[in-house]
Amino acid sequence: MKVNPSASAVWLPWMRRALQLAALADGRTSPNPLVGAVVLDKAGKLVGEGFHACAGEPHAEVGALAQAGKQASGGTLLVTLEPCCHQGRTPPCTEAVIAAGLRRVVVAMQDPDPRVAGAGITRLRDAGLEVITAVLELEAAHQNRAFVHRVSTGRPWGILKWAMSLDGRTALPNGASQWISGGEARRWVHRLRGQCDAVIVGGGTVRADDPLLTSRGHSDPEPKRVVLSRSLDLPQQAQLWNTAVAQTLVAHGLEPGHEQLAHLPEGPELLALPVSEPLELLQALAQQDCNRVLWECGPGLAAAALQQGCVQELAVVVAPKLLGGLPARTPLDDLGLTSMKEVVGLASGSLQSLGADWLLQYELSKHC
Amino acid sequence: MKVNPSASAVWLPWMRRALQLAALADGRTSPNPLVGAVVLDKAGKLVGEGFHACAGEPHAEVGALAQAGKQASGGTLLVTLEPCCHQGRTPPCTEAVIAAGLRRVVVAMQDPDPRVAGAGITRLRDAGLEVITAVLELEAAHQNRAFVHRVSTGRPWGILKWAMSLDGRTALPNGASQWISGGEARRWVHRLRGQCDAVIVGGGTVRADDPLLTSRGHSDPEPKRVVLSRSLDLPQQAQLWNTAVAQTLVAHGLEPGHEQLAHLPEGPELLALPVSEPLELLQALAQQDCNRVLWECGPGLAAAALQQGCVQELAVVVAPKLLGGLPARTPLDDLGLTSMKEVVGLASGSLQSLGADWLLQYELSKHC
Repeated sequence: MKVNPSASAVWLPWMRRALQLAALADGRTSPNPLVGAVVLDKAGKLVGEGFHACAGEPHAEVGALAQAGKQASGGTLLVTLEPCCHQGRTPPCTEAVIAAGLRRVVVAMQDPDPRVAGAGITRLRDAGLEVITAVLELEAAHQNRAFVHRVSTGRPWGILKWAMSLDGRTALPNGASQWISGGEARRWVHRLRGQCDAVIVGGGTVRADDPLLTSRGHSDPEPKRVVLSRSLDLPQQAQLWNTAVAQTLVAHGLEPGHEQLAHLPEGPELLALPVSEPLELLQALAQQDCNRVLWECGPGLAAAALQQGCVQELAVVVAPKLLGGLPARTPLDDLGLTSMKEVVGLASGSLQSLGADWLLQYELSKHC
Repeated sequence: MKVNPSASAVWLPWMRRALQLAALADGRTSPNPLVGAVVLDKAGKLVGEGFHACAGEPHAEVGALAQAGKQASGGTLLVTLEPCCHQGRTPPCTEAVIAAGLRRVVVAMQDPDPRVAGAGITRLRDAGLEVITAVLELEAAHQNRAFVHRVSTGRPWGILKWAMSLDGRTALPNGASQWISGGEARRWVHRLRGQCDAVIVGGGTVRADDPLLTSRGHSDPEPKRVVLSRSLDLPQQAQLWNTAVAQTLVAHGLEPGHEQLAHLPEGPELLALPVSEPLELLQALAQQDCNRVLWECGPGLAAAALQQGCVQELAVVVAPKLLGGLPARTPLDDLGLTSMKEVVGLASGSLQSLGADWLLQYELSKHC
């Protein structure tokens, strides 16, 4: 973390407020980042607030400045991300900031978008404004970790979620699995889906569980529902084929013959990938404006996603139930580990209760 | 819980103190219960404290009365368990209580031992003392749940413990398992062993892990180490065969031929059971003064112990690691469940962190 002597404690509560404003649109701004902004007048009084609500809508700074009106003159803008300096779907924010006659801009973090990447800050300084950077930078980077990850890797941030019994099972030996977790945990998963741009399963999950995979209205539009299928051996009837409730993509490699493609159900769109692998899928989803995806798949696809670096975060629901049975389904297929020394411990875990269940969350360190 | 109008709030802090005193000997009193006692003089001032340190040593009441001396006269005795009225290894406590000239006795719970079972309270009342019962009765019953269970069922209280990765594995696919949990969790398990009278594994765990199974000095003597083996296919060299550090029992059914018994290593004692099953083992261990045993076994024996009602409590350490691999060892073999409706949710779970690991603890309800 950079140390900035101008980052006086006076800005912290206002930047916290800007981060709160940004969070109001969590899950709705993709492919754009979350951004929040506040404007203080000359005397340091709050005169404007704004946040970026969704792509195509005005940026946070513009909304906050509009609210402040003439009171912005000589004042301070606090914004969670460096103002943009390029013409996108909306005009460059730097020009609006300069036009408002502000004296100072306080920025939490630089925009990693290569079209900005410090050029916005330079433009403001060249125009004579004082610019203070790196105020609550880590918090801002954490809030926008999905956007930052997508911009820097070309792939959306991946969350791998599973619900298991206390003995580590995701189904009974005969495959029955509805429901392992309780209602509160399932509602938490609906909300999590609402914060994601796509929910991914494999063909096996469609065949075994026939899931709906929506946020149950927490997000409008619903996240894309994606089936990654190597075999394209998919059922004719499935909840996912009803695309009136949400978009469904069937992603497949270029391998399958015409015959299998002809048998696919009506409704879902096809997404052709060079090969039917998690990494290829995420690159394609990044092109479709996805910043954050949720893996809700079986053990084979989950292990492949982990091994291909497509998982940045784990969300594990542990239900106080015992299922038993050596052939019962478990969360992860082979990771290729042969010694406990190769097993990497996950850092920074957090825990919360969801009804009778526990939710364990971990961010995977980069070397996982 | 019984409601007793005489159970005034005035007794609660003193009974809590008596429960604290009782807990000082946790794991060391078997086959006896934990008991703590305080004596208040006529004016309600604390004049004596005592607890039962181990079988054969004076009971808690006797110690507390000895400390109080003549100040007990006209005073009150608070004791976590009904005073005994029979001659055991020590004389009946009721007579010592009567002889001390007390005015009142406050009892948390009745002694379930059929030789007492209310007769101690009756004896005191017959001698003219006021007896108040059921003060912090649930707390006292919880503290002595192992003793109460052993007296009422003829089997020690069973705790099933395992350590698993976040994906529910107790070993890598190749069997490597040392160590899944971190040092703090392993030290917690050492302390847990010190509170138990026996630690039980199957032959497979001896062959796979060669465990030591001691409390590492937390308990003196160390808990018995018990191997329940149907096949008696045991290695010639194993840490458990060194009985200088702790007693080892090899429990087996009456099935094995003379040949297998002749091949058993020197050191451990043999314990012949009618059949080599968890239930038979626990009945034999109750005869050997065990109130509480710890199952640290593999999935087959753990599932059998659960199915035979030999597990009353679960302690699951979840380590923030991913092991993966469908053939990797998991905590429990088949429990015979075929529908999620048959799966019983566990009640009253608690959670604590042990270093980077989580410890989940559950008491199994009676119908599990």
